[in-house]
Amino acid sequence: MALLRNCWYVAAWGHEVGRTLLGRKVLEEPMVLYRTESGAPAALLDRCPHRLLPLSKGTLKGDTIECGYHGLTFDCSGQCVRAPGQERIPPTAQVRSFPAVEHMGMVWVWPGDPLLADKVKLFDQLPQWAASQLASPAWGLNIGPYTHVKANYQLLTENLVDPAHVTYVHKSTLGTAAMADIPIETTQIGDTLLVTRWTPDSPAAPILQRFGKWPGNVDRWQYYWLYPPSIAVVDFGSHLPGMERTEVARDEGIRIYSCHFLTPETEASTHYFWLQLRNFAQTDAAVSQDIVDQFVLAFDEDKTILEAIQEAEADPRVETGVKLALDSGSVRLRRTVARLIDEEQAAATPSPSGTSAGVPARHGAKSPTPVSH
Amino acid sequence: MALLRNCWYVAAWGHEVGRTLLGRKVLEEPMVLYRTESGAPAALLDRCPHRLLPLSKGTLKGDTIECGYHGLTFDCSGQCVRAPGQERIPPTAQVRSFPAVEHMGMVWVWPGDPLLADKVKLFDQLPQWAASQLASPAWGLNIGPYTHVKANYQLLTENLVDPAHVTYVHKSTLGTAAMADIPIETTQIGDTLLVTRWTPDSPAAPILQRFGKWPGNVDRWQYYWLYPPSIAVVDFGSHLPGMERTEVARDEGIRIYSCHFLTPETEASTHYFWLQLRNFAQTDAAVSQDIVDQFVLAFDEDKTILEAIQEAEADPRVETGVKLALDSGSVRLRRTVARLIDEEQAAATPSPSGTSAGVPARHGAKSPTPVSH
Amino acid sequence: MALLRNCWYVAAWGHEVGRTLLGRKVLEEPMVLYRTESGAPAALLDRCPHRLLPLSKGTLKGDTIECGYHGLTFDCSGQCVRAPGQERIPPTAQVRSFPAVEHMGMVWVWPGDPLLADKVKLFDQLPQWAASQLASPAWGLNIGPYTHVKANYQLLTENLVDPAHVTYVHKSTLGTAAMADIPIETTQIGDTLLVTRWTPDSPAAPILQRFGKWPGNVDRWQYYWLYPPSIAVVDFGSHLPGMERTEVARDEGIRIYSCHFLTPETEASTHYFWLQLRNFAQTDAAVSQDIVDQFVLAFDEDKTILEAIQEAEADPRVETGVKLALDSGSVRLRRTVARLIDEEQAAATPSPSGTSAGVPARHGAKSPTPVSH
Repeated sequence: MALLRNCWYVAAWGHEVGRTLLGRKVLEEPMVLYRTESGAPAALLDRCPHRLLPLSKGTLKGDTIECGYHGLTFDCSGQCVRAPGQERIPPTAQVRSFPAVEHMGMVWVWPGDPLLADKVKLFDQLPQWAASQLASPAWGLNIGPYTHVKANYQLLTENLVDPAHVTYVHKSTLGTAAMADIPIETTQIGDTLLVTRWTPDSPAAPILQRFGKWPGNVDRWQYYWLYPPSIAVVDFGSHLPGMERTEVARDEGIRIYSCHFLTPETEASTHYFWLQLRNFAQTDAAVSQDIVDQFVLAFDEDKTILEAIQEAEADPRVETGVKLALDSGSVRLRRTVARLIDEEQAAATPSPSGTSAGVPARHGAKSPTPVSH
Repeated sequence: MALLRNCWYVAAWGHEVGRTLLGRKVLEEPMVLYRTESGAPAALLDRCPHRLLPLSKGTLKGDTIECGYHGLTFDCSGQCVRAPGQERIPPTAQVRSFPAVEHMGMVWVWPGDPLLADKVKLFDQLPQWAASQLASPAWGLNIGPYTHVKANYQLLTENLVDPAHVTYVHKSTLGTAAMADIPIETTQIGDTLLVTRWTPDSPAAPILQRFGKWPGNVDRWQYYWLYPPSIAVVDFGSHLPGMERTEVARDEGIRIYSCHFLTPETEASTHYFWLQLRNFAQTDAAVSQDIVDQFVLAFDEDKTILEAIQEAEADPRVETGVKLALDSGSVRLRRTVARLIDEEQAAATPSPSGTSAGVPARHGAKSPTPVSH
Repeated sequence: MALLRNCWYVAAWGHEVGRTLLGRKVLEEPMVLYRTESGAPAALLDRCPHRLLPLSKGTLKGDTIECGYHGLTFDCSGQCVRAPGQERIPPTAQVRSFPAVEHMGMVWVWPGDPLLADKVKLFDQLPQWAASQLASPAWGLNIGPYTHVKANYQLLTENLVDPAHVTYVHKSTLGTAAMADIPIETTQIGDTLLVTRWTPDSPAAPILQRFGKWPGNVDRWQYYWLYPPSIAVVDFGSHLPGMERTEVARDEGIRIYSCHFLTPETEASTHYFWLQLRNFAQTDAAVSQDIVDQFVLAFDEDKTILEAIQEAEADPRVETGVKLALDSGSVRLRRTVARLIDEEQAAATPSPSGTSAGVPARHGAKSPTPVSH
């Protein structure tokens, strides 16, 4: 499977990584994740180079991992620092390490060329809370549980540039019938996609009705930002009908940023990390829990649909052929990601003259900040 | 796997198909089954042509199915009648439909060329009850539960032209040791096979002893009718020793028609529908239940054997080589089905001169009615 | 998978084989095991040559098996002795039989050329108890439960020429930190491997401490005998520091022979039979049970490690490359087994002149008896 490799991916929630060893596969690479004594995250290939035992079956000793079979010990750069039963450490006794950083409460890894890994390339499109590690008095935060989906990550990202599915997949939580025939608008800014829809003068989403306390209908907005390859921020909410469609006016309504971080595990499965920010009941833990519960239900509806599609696609007898207007986000996204992968692979291939074709452009770097009030 | 496709197959019991969507694979084709508001059965390919989501994950609205992902809506001919978010329905937005009819309490589908589907080709070899939808005062009826078997359908149909297995597989229900060395007789009438055995002056089948109330031994008969590719009617029973072997004389004994409708799901699995008709205790529901219970036990004995053979055949290291006299039904059946498939495929291939080689003869059409009193 | 076939392998514990039919796969061959009325073990290919039903689904009648499908009946040489429904027994109605003998409380089979099977080639390296069927007043015996491991048998045998893993895999049962850096010594005597390690003046193994009642430190020995392809005897124990390292001196300490009989089931799974002999509390059943319990824990630690390696090896993306001093036993073992297989295959291939290249030498035959007091 072609994947963008020179890119930061979320491997785990910060609270999942600690002083025990966590094995997790990222972009088909088995990794072992842990924290050093100073608290910094570390990621190694989860295989001892001696007999291939996953290092995650070993023991964390200080900042090193001792293999659970013969005690070979590796530091967090992957260098073997002890080989029991002999003085000399074999020069091949090294395990691949992956750049790893903590950012926005999550541990991110870089599966590609480590020389290109740069913290400057970390996702930074929600600066007010990203800068403060998800803490801001203006925004209430809730974090969803780690979710595993048995579907290719692009089935999930397509779903996140697709406001149209909400009416049919999320009847009980997010969708309303009134939205069904409202067309979407798709914009591309650099590599970033923005798919929007306004549904005027209609009932609010079931999940928001009790917080808005609106007397009747509302204007609903959906702004789906997709930062290739696989981070999505959905800005959605409602305010009284007829209000302006500006950032400021949207902040006066009930507003939620639903943030999705998708990491390919294998060609057919995805790690799914998600959280929401809200501009109401910011410090109310019961509301945070309630929103998590609602989105667990909603994303389980997506999971059911997408896992069924993953299975159906595995049957070579049936092919898709129908394209709809509502696919414009998905089409552009597939095209953009394919181009980024092509660029990356071209840059990695030495040119005929022997020099590299260059470092791939930072994807997502030129896209504007969606939150800019 | 070569399969006879221009043929009615049972897809479900009538009571399984209603105003909810039932997904079921028939001859490797995923199908969604439902009833229209008028009660007629309908069958579509269980894939939305947009993103391949199984339509059975959608919603039944009137006589149409609304896809559970984006609301594309299809009527029961498979034509798309609504594409949310746009006026124009794409001409490719069509899903394959399958001819479907209700007959004898079951929903039958035609997986092959719809132009060749004809109700006249439905199974009609038991006219007195088939005509009246399984209701006849002369015959008590019991219906078995839908059964799934992890074995190729031909392992099941061979078992149903094979009276010899009864002694060994069904010791506790249908078999007796006395039958073991009685040879079978195999006749072929058109495409229909008839395999018979009379076991004179010996104990009745365990399952029949309590209904017959015979003072001692009986004459037992087994008439196995097999209508290719995969419908079987087993006429079996007992009467007092020395009575004639005619239809009339058999009706004076205790007589059961055990009817088997086998539908390939995949190359390695089969849908199994079965029922029995009996000429005793016709209206006694407790007897019906008792017979179901006995046959559930008996067919579970078959299932165990046939699934073990399916697994053993998957191991290419061991081959069969032994043919026995008792295989005559099985050999003829395999040969007949292979010929019917060859004929069907030849008819489907345009001849060199550009004209079709002809429609395959209706299989089973020339076979006589086994019940003709 | 290349395997040594002309060799006795343990197929089952004696108590597992009786007057019911036991199906078990040995070297990829499905076998059915049972005892004749005289008590002798018998092994046939677990497939009826008629329809491939496993014979283990049939019925044991006297010394014969009646197939559960049509009653074909085979004697313990595999010859068909009855074909129901016909007088003549087809000459092809024969099933392969395997030489089978009982020895040391276990049933052994010979998967290779039956003409080469000879009881003289049975494992006999512990004569004092082998001769008396595991009963000797000088030695207490405990037998472990049949264990199934989802790993290639060579992962297990390598583990049994590898004293170094004990420190890391068996922390709670057999290992101590003091052993970690003591080098091992590897000797090869004929085809037999001997890997030894003495750990002087250090704490005893956790499992032995309570039996030894030593005032302080001990000298620990580990003698790993490996009889290719897959029988291991580990002689281990402790005595007071500074005592001689002779057989006699070791008998004066606390001494255990841990015996391992490994039989490939498939390329990726192994039957594991084990027992221990001890020179203390010989007749104490509670001690026997306690030792079984401890080794169940210890071997479960191995099983976890080896099954994880089996899985890791299935991923072709990562390769091993590091060799350590502690691998010397494993390297020699792989080389020896590969040579024995080559010799066997060469002997089985007719030479260009048409004569056989000869019978492979008896493996393990020249190795010395480890117990020789």
